Order: sequence, then structure tokens, then C-alpha cells
Amino acid sequence: MNLQKFSLEQLASFVQGKAVGQTEMQLDGLASLTQADAHKLAFVNADKYLDQANQSKAGALIVTEELRAHITSQQNFIVVENPYLAFAILTHVFEKKHTAQGIEATAQIHASAIISDTAYIGHYAVIGEHCVVGDETVIQSHCHIDDGVEIGKQCFIDSHVVLTGHCKLGNRVRIHANTVIGGEGFGFAPYKGKWHRIAQLGSVLIGNDVRIGSNCSIDRGALDDTIIEDGVILDNLVQIAHNVKVGANTAMAAKCGVAGSTTIGKNCIFAGAVGVVGHINIADNVTVTGMSMVTKSISEAGSYSSGTPMLESLHWKRAAVRFKQLADAPLTQMLKRLDHMQAQIESLESTFKLRK
Amino acid sequence: MNLQKFSLEQLASFVQGKAVGQTEMQLDGLASLTQADAHKLAFVNADKYLDQANQSKAGALIVTEELRAHITSQQNFIVVENPYLAFAILTHVFEKKHTAQGIEATAQIHASAIISDTAYIGHYAVIGEHCVVGDETVIQSHCHIDDGVEIGKQCFIDSHVVLTGHCKLGNRVRIHANTVIGGEGFGFAPYKGKWHRIAQLGSVLIGNDVRIGSNCSIDRGALDDTIIEDGVILDNLVQIAHNVKVGANTAMAAKCGVAGSTTIGKNCIFAGAVGVVGHINIADNVTVTGMSMVTKSISEAGSYSSGTPMLESLHWKRAAVRFKQLADAPLTQMLKRLDHMQAQIESLESTFKLRK
Amino acid sequence: MNLQKFSLEQLASFVQGKAVGQTEMQLDGLASLTQADAHKLAFVNADKYLDQANQSKAGALIVTEELRAHITSQQNFIVVENPYLAFAILTHVFEKKHTAQGIEATAQIHASAIISDTAYIGHYAVIGEHCVVGDETVIQSHCHIDDGVEIGKQCFIDSHVVLTGHCKLGNRVRIHANTVIGGEGFGFAPYKGKWHRIAQLGSVLIGNDVRIGSNCSIDRGALDDTIIEDGVILDNLVQIAHNVKVGANTAMAAKCGVAGSTTIGKNCIFAGAVGVVGHINIADNVTVTGMSMVTKSISEAGSYSSGTPMLESLHWKRAAVRFKQLADAPLTQMLKRLDHMQAQIESLESTFKLRK
Repeated sequence: MNLQKFSLEQLASFVQGKAVGQTEMQLDGLASLTQADAHKLAFVNADKYLDQANQSKAGALIVTEELRAHITSQQNFIVVENPYLAFAILTHVFEKKHTAQGIEATAQIHASAIISDTAYIGHYAVIGEHCVVGDETVIQSHCHIDDGVEIGKQCFIDSHVVLTGHCKLGNRVRIHANTVIGGEGFGFAPYKGKWHRIAQLGSVLIGNDVRIGSNCSIDRGALDDTIIEDGVILDNLVQIAHNVKVGANTAMAAKCGVAGSTTIGKNCIFAGAVGVVGHINIADNVTVTGMSMVTKSISEAGSYSSGTPMLESLHWKRAAVRFKQLADAPLTQMLKRLDHMQAQIESLESTFKLRK
Repeated sequence: MNLQKFSLEQLASFVQGKAVGQTEMQLDGLASLTQADAHKLAFVNADKYLDQANQSKAGALIVTEELRAHITSQQNFIVVENPYLAFAILTHVFEKKHTAQGIEATAQIHASAIISDTAYIGHYAVIGEHCVVGDETVIQSHCHIDDGVEIGKQCFIDSHVVLTGHCKLGNRVRIHANTVIGGEGFGFAPYKGKWHRIAQLGSVLIGNDVRIGSNCSIDRGALDDTIIEDGVILDNLVQIAHNVKVGANTAMAAKCGVAGSTTIGKNCIFAGAVGVVGHINIADNVTVTGMSMVTKSISEAGSYSSGTPMLESLHWKRAAVRFKQLADAPLTQMLKRLDHMQAQIESLESTFKLRK
Repeated sequence: MNLQKFSLEQLASFVQGKAVGQTEMQLDGLASLTQADAHKLAFVNADKYLDQANQSKAGALIVTEELRAHITSQQNFIVVENPYLAFAILTHVFEKKHTAQGIEATAQIHASAIISDTAYIGHYAVIGEHCVVGDETVIQSHCHIDDGVEIGKQCFIDSHVVLTGHCKLGNRVRIHANTVIGGEGFGFAPYKGKWHRIAQLGSVLIGNDVRIGSNCSIDRGALDDTIIEDGVILDNLVQIAHNVKVGANTAMAAKCGVAGSTTIGKNCIFAGAVGVVGHINIADNVTVTGMSMVTKSISEAGSYSSGTPMLESLHWKRAAVRFKQLADAPLTQMLKRLDHMQAQIESLESTFKLRK
């Protein structure tokens, strides 16, 4: 964390909030309610954190007007409408920025590549023929930017990233370490018991404001391109196969995987380790819960799940055995039989009573 | 894509097919039916694509004789028995080939390593003691080929690959970026509450024509070797633990994982994110559907699955609660009881009728 | 494997065992019972391996006194209390050690970094401002040790590892190739349909004797730190999100993933591909079976599971259809109805008999 100091007044102005209390007090960072000391700013986002807020040793708190009314142990506030957003904005104030520009002497840049004067190219980076790197873009050490790759402005490409397959990146794209974009899609034609490789002739198109985590693999298309639209955010260890299209502002948590030629809508949220089969369509605004297996198209916005809940292992084993039996247990029919038999019994009983 | 042009006649000859129509027309690439323009060749592989084929603007189509009879909007064809295989072969015609040979000045090669004159070694590659690199093999930038590793002919090793643990690769092996072969297996002896590392003394043996995706981890054996036989194809982010053996021509989609000392047969197909426990045997010709958990040996060829189907989340929650109840719901016995009670009811009814 | 030779006597002394038989015989390595030849030492750990032991061609066997009594085909032994632990210790005798010290000429070390004279820094490594590298630590080729990172003594950091986010590592930490520690956590505030990045101001703290596999991602904290305590062992392709805490001596097999702000206890064992949601607590001594989804806190030590057992696919499909029906099949109530109806039938039957 950058240890520059700011007054409460200044910090409030960054988020168009109102400074309350000792507005000249100096703060040198952000912290959680429980870890903050008197030089730190913390935030309160909901009623459930009021106890922690009242016990916090933070120098000041970011709150709503409403939350503030319930905090008695603290006099210094930044009052805003959305404390979490204000916190998100202020993290950038305290973040240590990459400021270096220029090309390290050890980088290998092909003569035909066009590198902005305001870009930074780290040690041992290798940049191929006809590549383009835009203004203020940072390419960290050891990246391999293969022939024909184009990168927009203000991007951040962390160490050991490989960009290949003539992929094109928009502006403000962030790609974390050891990720591979544009690798060869997994395409093979089976013939006489062997797999015949299909050379992958498509590419990867990545929009603006896309964020891709570390150790991800996004393959280039077989013929057409793999497409990641504007504002998509992907966590670490995500697999995007060839010819997938991910719609704008969709978010995927770590370890998700999407098989080939699937189209995912806009504003979707996939929790961790969701798997999606190939050649299907997912509508806009779909949420999928963690570790779910999406085996068919989803045409309606909503939330979807699969899997079974966690149980103590012996309990689980008994349930698992019964899962096998389910195959031969026609539940719906069993319910109908129960209803029918109950009616029969009641009929017998009433007839019997009548006879008495 | 390489933008060289070929006549329909030439392209037909590459796949031993028959050119029909304007056989001298020039085509500069392959494309999907929907994206193709008049300079592109597309393929039709099944009846279900006939509508798309009839609407396609492709310059020519790869078809079977039978499919051709149903295409009225197009005059130019390459007629073959297996259009998908023909397409696979033609992708190589239009692929841009790596043609450079020799060793980049920045590569660090140990004096004892033997590098073929026709191999290519990229920038910043590091090659250790007693390594061998065969004819026409391409090693891209930043690879670390550790001591004692041997690589056959016509291999393609993409950037940032780490080959270690004295692994040996056959011919025509392709390994995509950021993959690690020969890393230390996960072997620890528990003793008095701590984990004692078992140095991994085995290696990894990789056959001919093996394909391994990006960001994979294939660990070296504890004592004996981890073995990947000829023709195996692995997608991205695959984990192969120490002492696993994968049989010839087996395919695994992205994110599969196989735990230690498991043996997998030949010609198996694992869909995405399949997990296999350690110390089991999988027969030849086994298919496992996506995200399945293989917890015991499979001795018969066939298709296997686990997991639950995706449901709308509220529906899923109700089913999930019942999954817990399954543990105490003896389904098979419940069915028997239903049958028995129905017999009892029927007996009561008939006796009752007799008495009337 | 290092091919130095040792006498049976010497090897026994390394593990405080008793050499029996030809104590002067020379052995040049360890091997499995089935692969060992006359120059190799193998181990027998349980009764079930006695047949293999009696058929083994190993030069000598590591056994307990008890197991030895059942082995008739072999005269040469190292007798110990715990053969597996003895084997683990002896693997280190035969492991080829990294002995080089010093800094390769191609490494880029910032002038402010403090590198021990006994450390080794490989080719093309990049080490930033104010980094610290301790005694006898090995940093392999191409690593990027970013500004402010501190690494203890006797660590092993394999090729292409990226250490960033000011992370701190204890002593004897081993990190395998292509792993990323300290990458930016996945934190975004949603606002008006877009994701607003939260700069991640925390770090990663890694204790002593921690082992992390290849292709792992361990993110730095948002405000507080991500913490990996002493003795933790992680396999390959593991995801640890921001602000997770993993307790001492916990083990996770390959492909596990833990979402943000979750706390995991000490001495836990997670089998492969376990997923854990964010913001929960897992007690000490918890075992989770492979591919389980942990969706809520676990407060009791024990073993936990989720998922369904593998079935032949057609069998599975029938069970899967019934899983959907479970939502509307109140099993517990169905059992009660069965009991109640049975009582009614019996009552009818007995009344009926009385009347006869």
C-alpha cells in the first residue's frame, strides 16, 4: 500500500461525500473495521456491521447518513450514499501505481511492432511482428506477445502472460500473471482410431474494461473468433474454449470452464467452478451457483443450480446408495399410488363403518 | 491465418476429393457456413446443416455426394467421403507455419545439450545439462528445459513451458503455453502431525503425437514414471498426478484431473472437469461425461456419469433437501411395501365383496 | 535420480533402523516392489503387499519386524517401526540436489534487493525493489519476484513463479513452476450495471515449511492479508482467493478452490477438486472427500462429502430424472404415510377377522 496521507476532507471530496468531525485529520490508508487503527479509514455497509463499527479503532468511517445515526463511538465520518462504492473508489487512491514508462533494455521487440512512447515493456518481454501496444499500457516482465497481437490503451498485462493467435485487446484490459490468451483450441477430428488435429485459424477478440485473472486459458477460435465483450470480469484458473462468446459485464469466479462454441449472455454471474457444456446458449442475467454443471441452454433469466448439499460422510454414503436406487423408484408414481391406496383404505373403512 | 490462395482443384487434390464447378476459382481460406464470403471454403457435415449450407455465401463447400444433392444454391464443391476430416486436413494448408530455425542469441544452452541444427530455440529459453532437442522441433520463448530432458523430432513447445524431472518426449508432441511437465509429485508421509516430503525420484514419459494444452500440470513419478502413451490429447488446465498412466489415444477435455497411480485405458474420452481418484484402473474405450467423479475402477467399456442435472435454484433447493432425506428413505423397501399393501388392500376388497 | 551408492548398513543408519543380511551390499536407489532390481531398495508397508514383497527382485526391503517374519524369499532388510516414513527419508538421500549458488549473469536484480550470498538466482529472473532472499534459497529461471517481496531461508522457487503483492514467505517454502502468489484478488463493486475494480491493498503471508504446487493462484487480500500457516501443503492448480486463511498443516489435493474470506482450520485434509464458498469457517481436523462442495461452515471435526456416485450413464439418467422429482416427493412424509396406512390396513384386517 502507498503510504501517502490525505485529510478526511480530501478523501470525502474524492467520493463526493460529506466529511464530518475532524475534517483536517490525516489518514494513511484503508482497513477493515477490526484491523483499522487511528490512522486508517474503514467502511460500514450494512446494519449487521454496526457492532463492529462501534468497536472499531478506525480514525474515521465511511457510512450512509442512516448508518451514522447508530454509531456512537466515532465522531469522524465520510457520509455517502453507497459506502461500498466509495470504498472501491478510495482503494485506488491508496494503491501503489505503476509509473515507469519506456522499454527495458532486455526486452526483444520486433522492428515492425508499434509501441506507444508512454507504454512500459518489462524485462525479457518478447514482442513479435506487427504487434501494437497502446498508450500507457504496462506489459510486465517475461510476457510473450506473439506476432500480430494488438493491445489497446491503459492495459495492464502481468508477468508471464502469453498473448498469441493474433488476439486483439481493447482498452483498459487487465490480465494477471501466467494467463494464456489465444492458445490453440482443442479441435481434433477422430478418424480410424486416431485424433487428427484441426489447425485453429480463428482468433480471440477482447473488448474494453475486461479483467482476466491469473493462470487462465482462453483459446482462439477454430474458424471464427472467440469473443469476450466489454466489461467482462474473470477470476483465476478459468477456461474459455474456442468460439465461446461471453456477453458484456458477465462475471465468472475462479475455476469456471466453458466448452467450445457456447454463447453466454450479458450480465451473467457464475460462481466458482461452474462448468458449461459446448454448443449451448445462456440468456442474459443468468446466475449459476457454485460448482453447477450447465448441460443445456438456459433461455430465461434467473438462478440455476446443480449438485448435492454437503453432508457428514456416513450420512452422505447412505444418501448416495439411495441415489442409485432412485433410478428404479418412480417417485411421482409412488405418490399417486399412496394417494390412491389411501382412498381405497378410506373407502374400505367407511363402508365397513356403515355396515357396523 | 495464412492468406495464400489455392484453386478449388488444388484444394480438392489435398484431400483426394473431387472438385466440382468452377474448379479454377481461387480460395484464400476456410470459414464457417455463416461467416464465409465468396473467397472462402466451408464444410457441411450432416443433414442438419443443409439450411445453413443453402444460405451460405461461401465460394465453395466441402460435402459428401449425398449432401451435395440437397444443396441447390451452390455450384462449387469438393466432394469427399468425410467432410470433417477433409476440413481438418485443409486447416493445415491455411495455417501460418513456424519456419524459423536456429537458436536465438538470448537463449541459454548448456554446453552438454544436443540441439538439432533444424530446431528452433526462442528468446530467453534456458536449456540444461545433457538435454536433447530433435530435428525441426520448435521451442518458443522463455521455456525452461531442465537438466536431462529429451525432446524428439517435430515437436512444438509453446512459450513458458517448463519441462523438468528428466522427462522424455517422443516425436510430434505439442505442448501449449505455461504448462509444467515433470514437476514434483504430491507425496508426503504424515508423521506426528506433520507432512514429510517424499522426494520424487521418477520421471514422465510422453509418447509420440501427444498434445497437451496450456496451464496443465503433469507430475513426475515417486519411484516409477508417469506415462502418457502415443496419441493422447489433453485440453487446458488438466492435472495428471504422479505415477498415472494414460493409455494411447485417450482424450481429456479441459480441467480434468487424475489422482496418483491411476491407470487409464486406451481410447477413452473424458469430458470437461472429470475427476478420477487415485489407485484405480479404467478399462479401454470408457467415456465419462462432464464433471463426473470417478471413485472406483471401471472394468467395462461404456459411458459413465455422476452429478445431478441443472435446475432452477428454488427447485434445486427442494430437491437438495430431499437428497438429505434419502439417507433414511429406503426406496427399494418402500416400493416393496407399496406392492405388499396394495395386495393387502385388494385382498380386503375382494373378501369384502364376497361377503356382501 | 542421483546414482551414488550406499551400503545397506549406511542406509539403515540414516533411518535409525537395523540392517539385516548382507549389510555391506551396495544399493544405488529406491524402487517399487514390482520394478526393483538387485541394486534397489524397496519398502513394504502393510500385509497386503506381502505377496508382492515375496516376488520382488529388490536387493533389500524396508520392513517392520512383524512384516519381516512373513517374507521368505528375501534375506536383506532394513527393519524399522515405520517403513513408509523410512522410505520418505531415504528418498532425500537419492535425490539429486540443487547445489549451485550465486546469481546468474542474466538475472536482473534491483540495487536495493538483499540477496544472501548462499542463495541461487537463475537465468532471466527479475527481482524488484527492496526484495529479500534468504540463505540457501534457490530461485529458478524466469521467476519474477516483484517489489517488496521477502523470501526466507532454504526455499525452493521453481521456474516462472510470480511472487507479487508484497508477499512474505517463511523458511523452507517450496513453490512449484508457474504458480502466482500475491496476484490481485477478485474484488469488484457492482454499480449501475458495471463492475468497479477494488484495488487490492492487502498481501499474502506464507509460513514456514509450506509447499505449493504448480499452476496455483493465491491472491493477495483486499485490505487484510491472505494467510497460509506453517506446514500447509497444496497440490497443483489450487485457487486460494483473497483474505482466505489456511490453518497449519492442512493439506489440499489438486484443483481445490477456496473462495474469499474463508477460514480453514489446522490439520484439515481436502481431497481433489473440493470447492469451498466464501466467508465461512471450517474447524480443525476436517476431512472433505473429493469434488465436494462446501457451502456452509463446518464446526465439528469429521469427514464431509457431497456429489453423487458414478453410475453407468443410462442408469444415471434415470436417477437424474428422479432427482428432479425429489423436489415434489416429501420422502419423510411418504414414509410416515406408509406406516400410517399399514396400521390402518392391519386394523381393518384384524377387525375383519374378529367379525368373521
